[in-house]
Amino acid sequence: MARFLKKSKEEIGTSPDELIFRGDKKINEVQLRIIDFDANSLAEETIKTVKEVLKYQEKDTVTWFNIDGLHNTEIIEGIANEFNFDRMVLADVMNTQARPTIKEYDNCIYISIKMLQQAPNSDIINVENLSLILTESILISFQETKGDVFEPVRERIRKQKRRIRNGGTDYLLFALLDIVIDNYIYIIGVLGEKIEMLEESLLLEPRQEIIGEINSYKRELNFLRKNIKPAKEVILSLAKMESDYITESTEMHFKELQDNINHASDSSDSYREILSDQLNIYHTTISSKLNDIMKFLTVFSVIFIPLTFIAGIYGTNFDVVPELHYKYSYFIMWGVIIVIAIGMLIYFRKKKWL
Amino acid sequence: MARFLKKSKEEIGTSPDELIFRGDKKINEVQLRIIDFDANSLAEETIKTVKEVLKYQEKDTVTWFNIDGLHNTEIIEGIANEFNFDRMVLADVMNTQARPTIKEYDNCIYISIKMLQQAPNSDIINVENLSLILTESILISFQETKGDVFEPVRERIRKQKRRIRNGGTDYLLFALLDIVIDNYIYIIGVLGEKIEMLEESLLLEPRQEIIGEINSYKRELNFLRKNIKPAKEVILSLAKMESDYITESTEMHFKELQDNINHASDSSDSYREILSDQLNIYHTTISSKLNDIMKFLTVFSVIFIPLTFIAGIYGTNFDVVPELHYKYSYFIMWGVIIVIAIGMLIYFRKKKWL
Amino acid sequence: MARFLKKSKEEIGTSPDELIFRGDKKINEVQLRIIDFDANSLAEETIKTVKEVLKYQEKDTVTWFNIDGLHNTEIIEGIANEFNFDRMVLADVMNTQARPTIKEYDNCIYISIKMLQQAPNSDIINVENLSLILTESILISFQETKGDVFEPVRERIRKQKRRIRNGGTDYLLFALLDIVIDNYIYIIGVLGEKIEMLEESLLLEPRQEIIGEINSYKRELNFLRKNIKPAKEVILSLAKMESDYITESTEMHFKELQDNINHASDSSDSYREILSDQLNIYHTTISSKLNDIMKFLTVFSVIFIPLTFIAGIYGTNFDVVPELHYKYSYFIMWGVIIVIAIGMLIYFRKKKWL
Amino acid sequence: MARFLKKSKEEIGTSPDELIFRGDKKINEVQLRIIDFDANSLAEETIKTVKEVLKYQEKDTVTWFNIDGLHNTEIIEGIANEFNFDRMVLADVMNTQARPTIKEYDNCIYISIKMLQQAPNSDIINVENLSLILTESILISFQETKGDVFEPVRERIRKQKRRIRNGGTDYLLFALLDIVIDNYIYIIGVLGEKIEMLEESLLLEPRQEIIGEINSYKRELNFLRKNIKPAKEVILSLAKMESDYITESTEMHFKELQDNINHASDSSDSYREILSDQLNIYHTTISSKLNDIMKFLTVFSVIFIPLTFIAGIYGTNFDVVPELHYKYSYFIMWGVIIVIAIGMLIYFRKKKWL
Amino acid sequence: MARFLKKSKEEIGTSPDELIFRGDKKINEVQLRIIDFDANSLAEETIKTVKEVLKYQEKDTVTWFNIDGLHNTEIIEGIANEFNFDRMVLADVMNTQARPTIKEYDNCIYISIKMLQQAPNSDIINVENLSLILTESILISFQETKGDVFEPVRERIRKQKRRIRNGGTDYLLFALLDIVIDNYIYIIGVLGEKIEMLEESLLLEPRQEIIGEINSYKRELNFLRKNIKPAKEVILSLAKMESDYITESTEMHFKELQDNINHASDSSDSYREILSDQLNIYHTTISSKLNDIMKFLTVFSVIFIPLTFIAGIYGTNFDVVPELHYKYSYFIMWGVIIVIAIGMLIYFRKKKWL
Repeated sequence: MARFLKKSKEEIGTSPDELIFRGDKKINEVQLRIIDFDANSLAEETIKTVKEVLKYQEKDTVTWFNIDGLHNTEIIEGIANEFNFDRMVLADVMNTQARPTIKEYDNCIYISIKMLQQAPNSDIINVENLSLILTESILISFQETKGDVFEPVRERIRKQKRRIRNGGTDYLLFALLDIVIDNYIYIIGVLGEKIEMLEESLLLEPRQEIIGEINSYKRELNFLRKNIKPAKEVILSLAKMESDYITESTEMHFKELQDNINHASDSSDSYREILSDQLNIYHTTISSKLNDIMKFLTVFSVIFIPLTFIAGIYGTNFDVVPELHYKYSYFIMWGVIIVIAIGMLIYFRKKKWL
Repeated sequence: MARFLKKSKEEIGTSPDELIFRGDKKINEVQLRIIDFDANSLAEETIKTVKEVLKYQEKDTVTWFNIDGLHNTEIIEGIANEFNFDRMVLADVMNTQARPTIKEYDNCIYISIKMLQQAPNSDIINVENLSLILTESILISFQETKGDVFEPVRERIRKQKRRIRNGGTDYLLFALLDIVIDNYIYIIGVLGEKIEMLEESLLLEPRQEIIGEINSYKRELNFLRKNIKPAKEVILSLAKMESDYITESTEMHFKELQDNINHASDSSDSYREILSDQLNIYHTTISSKLNDIMKFLTVFSVIFIPLTFIAGIYGTNFDVVPELHYKYSYFIMWGVIIVIAIGMLIYFRKKKWL
Repeated sequence: MARFLKKSKEEIGTSPDELIFRGDKKINEVQLRIIDFDANSLAEETIKTVKEVLKYQEKDTVTWFNIDGLHNTEIIEGIANEFNFDRMVLADVMNTQARPTIKEYDNCIYISIKMLQQAPNSDIINVENLSLILTESILISFQETKGDVFEPVRERIRKQKRRIRNGGTDYLLFALLDIVIDNYIYIIGVLGEKIEMLEESLLLEPRQEIIGEINSYKRELNFLRKNIKPAKEVILSLAKMESDYITESTEMHFKELQDNINHASDSSDSYREILSDQLNIYHTTISSKLNDIMKFLTVFSVIFIPLTFIAGIYGTNFDVVPELHYKYSYFIMWGVIIVIAIGMLIYFRKKKWL
Repeated sequence: MARFLKKSKEEIGTSPDELIFRGDKKINEVQLRIIDFDANSLAEETIKTVKEVLKYQEKDTVTWFNIDGLHNTEIIEGIANEFNFDRMVLADVMNTQARPTIKEYDNCIYISIKMLQQAPNSDIINVENLSLILTESILISFQETKGDVFEPVRERIRKQKRRIRNGGTDYLLFALLDIVIDNYIYIIGVLGEKIEMLEESLLLEPRQEIIGEINSYKRELNFLRKNIKPAKEVILSLAKMESDYITESTEMHFKELQDNINHASDSSDSYREILSDQLNIYHTTISSKLNDIMKFLTVFSVIFIPLTFIAGIYGTNFDVVPELHYKYSYFIMWGVIIVIAIGMLIYFRKKKWL
Repeated sequence: MARFLKKSKEEIGTSPDELIFRGDKKINEVQLRIIDFDANSLAEETIKTVKEVLKYQEKDTVTWFNIDGLHNTEIIEGIANEFNFDRMVLADVMNTQARPTIKEYDNCIYISIKMLQQAPNSDIINVENLSLILTESILISFQETKGDVFEPVRERIRKQKRRIRNGGTDYLLFALLDIVIDNYIYIIGVLGEKIEMLEESLLLEPRQEIIGEINSYKRELNFLRKNIKPAKEVILSLAKMESDYITESTEMHFKELQDNINHASDSSDSYREILSDQLNIYHTTISSKLNDIMKFLTVFSVIFIPLTFIAGIYGTNFDVVPELHYKYSYFIMWGVIIVIAIGMLIYFRKKKWL
């Protein structure tokens, strides 16, 4: 299956507001969770139907409505209807294959971004599409699976951290995106550590497996960069957006998001360069090692070639070969052979070929 | 024939409004099809002469006028006359070799874009020039051949999908362009799957044919990128255009087109990098394999060189070679040979040359 | 001589309005041609002195004044005086080595661009500097040689093509530039065909001469790109220029010029990539072929090495070599040799070294 | 540990205003130093508590408050409270791992930048995060360790240099940043000298250790570039910033900072290219040297091959080998051998293989 | 010494208006020259003290004050005082190591640019820092040595060239910068000729010294590019600058400077590509030549290997080797050897290995 994008032949030409789930169903049951708070009050609830959200809507509080699982078209349609969103927004939510984007509608801002998470005790990075709908009083977040990635934010809300309890939905949005980008940084950091450890073993002993590792890290890094690039665009658009739903004080936080994602992006660029340098070092080391071997072996053979020739000469069966009959000839031959061998050794050493 | 652009010597210096068909005639008869609709009514008709369109023009409905086949200058000229378009617009329509572009005229917007389609059960990608003329009440589309690529849109109109039946000609324009770009994405996806499958077989067994496949994919990808790049510019211009023919609500859809074509473009970039990495992996694997063989063979020969020399020495016919007459000399020689061979094997192994 | 730019030591520090001819004199006599027209009238004349132009100037018609040959300082100075142009404009006209540029003066627009032309029946591309001075009622074109490159435009004027006869000097400017850019496209197309034909012969049989051809095409392409790049800037500036001499209706045509030159530029980029891919394919093919040969030869020698060693052993002259005296020893030796040879062949084949 | 960025799993999701020290504790005790001055007065003091600063605040003088050591949360919190800064500012101060940034708050400007310093008598470059908070009347600088890098500025203040004593906090800010960037330039200069010295030894004798040096310089340069790039952005933002805290006269100085950091950045680019050229030169030299050796050795062996073959022929034990019995055969063989050897030598020399 | 930038440890942290000469003292005595002119009058004088300039200042003429030699702090300080310039301007003048820049002050414009000059009859390029201070009525130019580079401008002034005698200080500024950039173009042209000549000798006979030449040209080109890049920025800023000191009519000339420096920059880019292509051609030619040699030698040895083996077989001393005793065996052996040799030759030729 194509890793970067896929589109089945059937999907071509469907209406942009058709609610079709595009992706892999990763969870069985859809879960609807609500946290409603302001500086003083706090309510947490797991609800069954979308309608139950409405009671929180009337209040002047910040409502965070989290949906885990996107395959239930009915629920998604309910959200479109209850909140009066353009069906296109929800169609986008259900298309988990789409490119991260940010769109401003009349009554909401829609953000989609890829959430990357290092699977615990494993090298696998889980990718999940996160969609967010921001309005004045509610933030709806759509996740593909039930994850605990946003738990720290919930904790901060529960523990009455001043900033988050006093902030609006826009600050909540920042808090969620901050976690997403912190995960980018964390993943790049983990990968970076592996890459830097590679460097050491590369200098000590350039095993052939290293080439495989470098290539797999390269692939992983490409995958990260491919996800970070559009996220960067989304965050930039968000920081620049002049919307009623975003207060001035939150803009400063979005600037911080920008710094963080730039940091992630810069670092991934750096690691990319390091990997490509490592590949070069590997090739240089390998080829210089091979050169040494070949040089040694060739010099070794070359020394024996004239010696074997001499022995060959005196193996001929000519009737008249005067040297053969001299008493010390054999020993002289050995002498000559040794002199030639040593002479060549000295010559090659002088020429720095050995 | 030059794949990317061609211009015959004769065409140089012709007037920009001369109606000359530039391209390959891909269809025999020109077909004129009309779909006229609004939220409530729907009419479909295949007409013979351009004049017949006019009756739809008077009505307040959306008219989609599709022309398959561009070689009939008379018909094209008829369109220029009946709708009062600048002849230059129609000259552009007939020049199927031109670069995708978007131009705003007084009484219409002209868009041309390359339509790519994967031929069924084949690796061939068909390229066709699609021209679109947008006015307030009519959308004229020009295709080189009679294709069924826009059938899903027709279906959506027939099935009374709310959005398309309520939309104007601009929404219809979006629907058509959406199909074009979805086809880009689909084609890249298909190519991408092949590229990723290559990777596996590359790691298992780097056959030499792979190099040919990589190069052909590279060429295909270059071809796609060459078509996507100007399309991206067209879509961007369209999204930014402030025209009376484009309603604000459709602009959001154009933004989606932009996301999609960026997605296609990003993915083609990624696949390009993957291909170039694959080429590197192939070369590395091949060369490291060759190195192993050469190293083995060289070490093998080197071991025999001193042995053959020793045998040569005792093949000499000197009168006095004391060793020859000692009873066990032959066996001692064998012993020395074996010791030398094993010694060298141990030395080479220790040096990691074997 | 430096291909891309040259400046003699003497020219450094000359006044920018000094009328010095810088270039190669390509024609002996300067020729002054005039075409004067409006929708109804047409006059063509070859004149002797610049003064004769003035009578056309008084009329309300479009005057196209074409000068072939730039070395006659007197004539050039005459133009400066009669039309009251800044002498700097004419100094630029005479400097055929300068970079294509566009400059807006109080009473005219000055454009210079390189005109490339494929020499008939030859691979040579002729470069000529084309300078154009645009005012309200006259377009002056300066060519280095008397060429027939603009003949199609003259024909269009003579044949009373509506658009050109009704247009102003700005439309005439477009018509001339259109021919220049069409020639770029034609040349790239011709080169492109050659490059694509190379590809076929590259896959069939990678002869060594191909490397020379690739390099010469690369040089040719670099030369084209070097000329197209500043032309692109000139056309862009022209399209963006807000001048009284350029009517709104002509701006649309300038937009078309831009599309065309972008097309040329994109295609040259594509061919560049193709050439660099071809170079890679060539190297890969050649090196993989050499590898095959070396592998075969090495394997071949390696098989004989132990065999020769065995023969050497039984060529020794020891008094006691028991095997020598056994009746079938010689045949056994042959058997052993054949077994070893076949065994090695099987081993190497199994290891895929053969 | 990842060199470029690190983020522990625990930090993900913390509030942006939580005051956590992120970095390595490099100093034991926090030191608070104050210099307060205007054109006429000067006071220097080392204080114990943040409260002591306040007395300087009331005066109309410029106060420079320098904090060495960031691990004491209490002190940092005290600054937030006493000066009424947003806690987020101080959270940023304590996060020494963050990317250099500049942020404008209601009551201050926050700048963070990496301070690089060549350790004396060593190749090590110390990196330290420098944070600066600028208000109308105070400049607070946060350093990780107690360094004497800003001593020249203190000296200039003490020596009553007119410009610094008459300038405001913004001029002081410039003076500090100037030192930071001067250190960048100094470090690049030192590295550059080493790189250029490498070039000489590269041409004289390409030892294998050079490859290691080139790679270590490359890594060092990448590290510098990685730090300079965001610093460049910070300086650019600063130069463009329209803030009440920055007087017009200081803007000119910020322009100078920009020139300087561009100079540093350009130079690092140049050295990067030089390093990559050096790598190429090294490889070319090494491979051309190896080629020479292999060519020599191969030619040497090839000359002996037919000679040994001839000796072999006359070592055969056939009953009838007429040449064996001719008296001068042995000497003729030697003659033939010498002729062949010399012939081959001449041939190879003529072919320029030797 | 670092070629691209240097900063001694002591300079870090000095005040930006400290008048310290940074560079190499290239001249012993400072020379102060004045040319004062308007359309009608002309005065030339070599003065001793800065004060003498003032008398020219009162007049309504254009004064060009040229200072050769920058090491005399007193004189520089005198200029600052007499003309009331910010000391920072003069500090910049004395820092000959700085990056080319342009700065607008209240009472002047400061420009610094690198002046490159081909040393006569040598490959050396002299670099000198040129500083210019422009005010309404005076242009001050600072050169490091007494050169005659600006002599052509003095000549134009003396010869009463209309444009320069009627122009203001801004036109004089243009005339000086024009010479600087013309020298850039001249130097690139000279280098370019050498590079193009290299190409020919590269195709005829790829000697090893060529690699050294290519690398030295590359370094020279990098050095030029490094100087041209900031000069380009300076010229661009100058062309865009809206200053009272620059009249509208001169702006057109600055546009010409821009064209010229872009021409220089484009050409250096082209030569860079050519050099890198040449390097590729060299490597390809060399390696294909080596391949031919190695192939020939290997094929040569391989042919002898089975022949020597056969001779070895019949050199064995077995009691029973039937072939040895047959009368024609020796001649048959020769026949077999010749057949094998010819067979292999035919085979290798057929396989195109020879």
